[in-house]
Amino acid sequence: MGRSWWGWGDEDAAVTGAEAAALEQRVAALLPGADLTAHRPPNVRDVPLPEPRVSTPGSLRALVSGGHADRAAHARGKAFRDVVRNLHGRVDHAPDLVARPRTEQDVTDVLDWCTGAGIAVIPYGGGSSVVGGVEPRFDGPAVSLDTTAMCRVLEVDATSRAARVQAGIHGPALENALRPAGLTLRHYPQSFEFSTLGGWLATRAGGHYATVLTRIDDLVESLRVVTPVGTSASLRVSASGAGPSPDALFLGSEGTLGVITEAWMRLQDRPRFTASAAVHFGDYGSGVAATRALAQSGLAPSNCRLLDPVEAMLNAGTVSQGGVLVLGFESADHPVDAAMDRAAELCADHGGEVRDRRSDDRAELRGSPRSAGSSGPARRWRSSFLRMPYQRDALAARSMIVETFETACTWDRFDALRNAVTAAAQDAMAQAGVPGVVSCRFTHVYPDGPAPYFGVYAAGRWGATVAQWDGIKSAVSGAIAGEGGTVTHHHAVGRDHRPWYDGQRPDVFAVAFHAAKSALDPGGVLNPGVLVDAQPRPVPADGRAAARRNLGPGLPR
Amino acid sequence: MGRSWWGWGDEDAAVTGAEAAALEQRVAALLPGADLTAHRPPNVRDVPLPEPRVSTPGSLRALVSGGHADRAAHARGKAFRDVVRNLHGRVDHAPDLVARPRTEQDVTDVLDWCTGAGIAVIPYGGGSSVVGGVEPRFDGPAVSLDTTAMCRVLEVDATSRAARVQAGIHGPALENALRPAGLTLRHYPQSFEFSTLGGWLATRAGGHYATVLTRIDDLVESLRVVTPVGTSASLRVSASGAGPSPDALFLGSEGTLGVITEAWMRLQDRPRFTASAAVHFGDYGSGVAATRALAQSGLAPSNCRLLDPVEAMLNAGTVSQGGVLVLGFESADHPVDAAMDRAAELCADHGGEVRDRRSDDRAELRGSPRSAGSSGPARRWRSSFLRMPYQRDALAARSMIVETFETACTWDRFDALRNAVTAAAQDAMAQAGVPGVVSCRFTHVYPDGPAPYFGVYAAGRWGATVAQWDGIKSAVSGAIAGEGGTVTHHHAVGRDHRPWYDGQRPDVFAVAFHAAKSALDPGGVLNPGVLVDAQPRPVPADGRAAARRNLGPGLPR
Repeated sequence: MGRSWWGWGDEDAAVTGAEAAALEQRVAALLPGADLTAHRPPNVRDVPLPEPRVSTPGSLRALVSGGHADRAAHARGKAFRDVVRNLHGRVDHAPDLVARPRTEQDVTDVLDWCTGAGIAVIPYGGGSSVVGGVEPRFDGPAVSLDTTAMCRVLEVDATSRAARVQAGIHGPALENALRPAGLTLRHYPQSFEFSTLGGWLATRAGGHYATVLTRIDDLVESLRVVTPVGTSASLRVSASGAGPSPDALFLGSEGTLGVITEAWMRLQDRPRFTASAAVHFGDYGSGVAATRALAQSGLAPSNCRLLDPVEAMLNAGTVSQGGVLVLGFESADHPVDAAMDRAAELCADHGGEVRDRRSDDRAELRGSPRSAGSSGPARRWRSSFLRMPYQRDALAARSMIVETFETACTWDRFDALRNAVTAAAQDAMAQAGVPGVVSCRFTHVYPDGPAPYFGVYAAGRWGATVAQWDGIKSAVSGAIAGEGGTVTHHHAVGRDHRPWYDGQRPDVFAVAFHAAKSALDPGGVLNPGVLVDAQPRPVPADGRAAARRNLGPGLPR
Repeated sequence: MGRSWWGWGDEDAAVTGAEAAALEQRVAALLPGADLTAHRPPNVRDVPLPEPRVSTPGSLRALVSGGHADRAAHARGKAFRDVVRNLHGRVDHAPDLVARPRTEQDVTDVLDWCTGAGIAVIPYGGGSSVVGGVEPRFDGPAVSLDTTAMCRVLEVDATSRAARVQAGIHGPALENALRPAGLTLRHYPQSFEFSTLGGWLATRAGGHYATVLTRIDDLVESLRVVTPVGTSASLRVSASGAGPSPDALFLGSEGTLGVITEAWMRLQDRPRFTASAAVHFGDYGSGVAATRALAQSGLAPSNCRLLDPVEAMLNAGTVSQGGVLVLGFESADHPVDAAMDRAAELCADHGGEVRDRRSDDRAELRGSPRSAGSSGPARRWRSSFLRMPYQRDALAARSMIVETFETACTWDRFDALRNAVTAAAQDAMAQAGVPGVVSCRFTHVYPDGPAPYFGVYAAGRWGATVAQWDGIKSAVSGAIAGEGGTVTHHHAVGRDHRPWYDGQRPDVFAVAFHAAKSALDPGGVLNPGVLVDAQPRPVPADGRAAARRNLGPGLPR
């Protein structure tokens, strides 16, 4: 068994039996008449792949695989459109080879080989991209650079509460390594089990905390990045105002500037005190107003996720008129009941009804990756959280269109944005003739605005669901851009978001970024097509040496 | 009267009479035998300046001044070495002209003129740089681009709690414009009265909050920046994960990439609940341990500034064995007494003695720019805070060497860093034959480390104090670098920190930044010598047009 080549996670964790039956029942109730015939994925051995167009230099043989299953498993990420194309056995683009460096020198050697030969390199962590970030969707040969052999915690500084970690480590292994010291990163994206630190950093992943430390950016002390012209190592300090942040150039660079190999990460003490509640609202507007008040209160809840009625129903099994706010506080240092009291007061001021309130002052003794001490919708929503991608796959195999998209905006624009997005999705579903629903929740909230996360659940036609989804995606992305939202808050740009990203980022910044990329990646080999256009071309040895000599002139040490 | 041409702030606020006498008395007690003869600054009219080497195109006449006093006042910042050179009437480098754009188009026109003619442009806000950031310390002509005519609050979004503000506004004018809406930026650098929003953003200034929102970076929603190849406008959202942050490239760019003209800034409700205390420690190590515990507690104090015994004595008039922690909490939403209770408990666990505890639940009715509701050392330290630069000038005119420098590091390295810095400063003072003392306080603290701020107070020899200080500065900067601290946490790099910055920033990042600058500033005219080397050269009209056309190719909208 082991990892699924075509879908999410582990093969033996796939949705079957009673869970599958219950899922089909819920969908049938929601979308009567949907054809839920289950389609089986092909055996990976039967999926045709083009022959490798490049061969490995002898010196790198030990690191590189051209195995069929390896190449198929590294051919794309885990978006709905990826999974469905796998189910149909359609792998149009596969890497020619898969490299698994064990050291930074290995990474340097692979980049040097590919720069010299003009071969594209796609940095690959857990392969959980949902934006086409790891798919070699271009002509010409490609090597998938899999970082997961570099997966150790190298150093823990308990005084400063930080650790030096290799980029290829998966979430659970990282948390297991930190637990003995009573420390935790507390970064739990939905992909937690199957994504890597390097992937989180390269895509500016969103995590556990709904406020303040919302994204991996906030947890980084320093980075090591191997580029074709050399290795960048930023100074490890608590903060620096020495010029523009070097780390900020690489956070979100999505493998286009270099390969992140190591980071010093800020850690947390394991939370001891937790409190949680579910707040029900009679109308959605009141829920939004209460959530905004909380986001601006300075109470800094660790969980503050407003589910609209559709989301509450589908993913928390809760009927609610205006939506449910899943609320949580945690601290390693002090009780959080007073904060929860004030939060409940604020919610009541907006007509919210607080239910299922729980608190715990021994949470550190429990194992849950999510904050402990809750039940009801909060618990149900959380327990379903890590199952969602498996259920998405089961539904995708039953001709359902099940996909999410996310954004962030300021509070003054949220109502118009949600209305426009919902309308665009519904129009697109109607045009495609697929009955469906749209849900919305907040994954993170800021004093100046929310990060809304939308779900689409529609009954598609087997063989057509990718095209049907692409139509919906294009419509909702246009609506988001039209209402001033960002094309992504934490899913990244990849290849799928390029048209809207290109309309969003300032042209002047794009010129600067393009110049920076050309300087660090003179062969244009790093993840071509992501963030910016690039056409890999061979750079001979003397050209590579000259590019590295640039590290000298005009830049006195 | 009005602004002082040679020293800090307003002429009529200068230290005189009783304040001067008290100051001399304190210094005499600290450094017996110091020659405190007061030297007068020359009249600006008597300070020789080289003739302007360039003349203004007719179309820009209305914006540009070649006035003697204007040029002298824009010749440098307000570091100790700047003030002393002014006192001696030595203005070696002055801008040839001072331009005061009133609109973004004016800024574009000035940049286009200077790029075409190969004239250096030095963006200038309040001119309070203490790192040589605004001094044309190079050959060739220079224009000082003074942004202070662009000084309005253009829009307030009370729902999202944000405002669109022109970059040339000074601190007090900004706060006055926001007060009617009950909002505040709450960014109070020591230069608050005489520095501008654009300067804060370009230098990543540190502000009021000792934790969490420590720097202006944390308060920015979006930026408008005029560069020689076009204007960059980032999307105004609460957060975005769409590629590397465009704003992060310009934050800390210190005028080398463009001129920041506008920003959407995140605001706060005016705090209603405040609490403060001064915690005395028997030994400094316990004070550091307590401060670290607070920084890692999640209590998020707004003030958490540990003064060592020297700092407590000199700037808070308090005798203390091991130092004093100036502690404060504030909230617009909820009482902060529980947080102060827990903070006091943590301090007591480390042997701290809590004194002068005060709290206030009507703070928003009071006017103080610093959080209200305190007395004792806390109040005394704060009230002296805004006077310090004036007193520095008075002492500089009395042959004293009075200057500060700052850094940030991780907690595990702080003891070694402070010891090395103090030893280096004392050795350097001994070698220079100037008796003096070194003080240390934390301006900001992070879970993973403090931002220490050092003061040097030494009795110099009139005419030699600049050279004497430069020797001390070089020694302490070397010690900071040697112990893994950053060359600056919030004073910026400018020209004075270049040697240590060049040793700190990753070469690979420098190559990328250099490439980005060349793309945005093809004439190399923007603040040459700051952050990177650049040699202004004329770019003809067709070359400028070509550079702007780069905004097209390879970068589809």
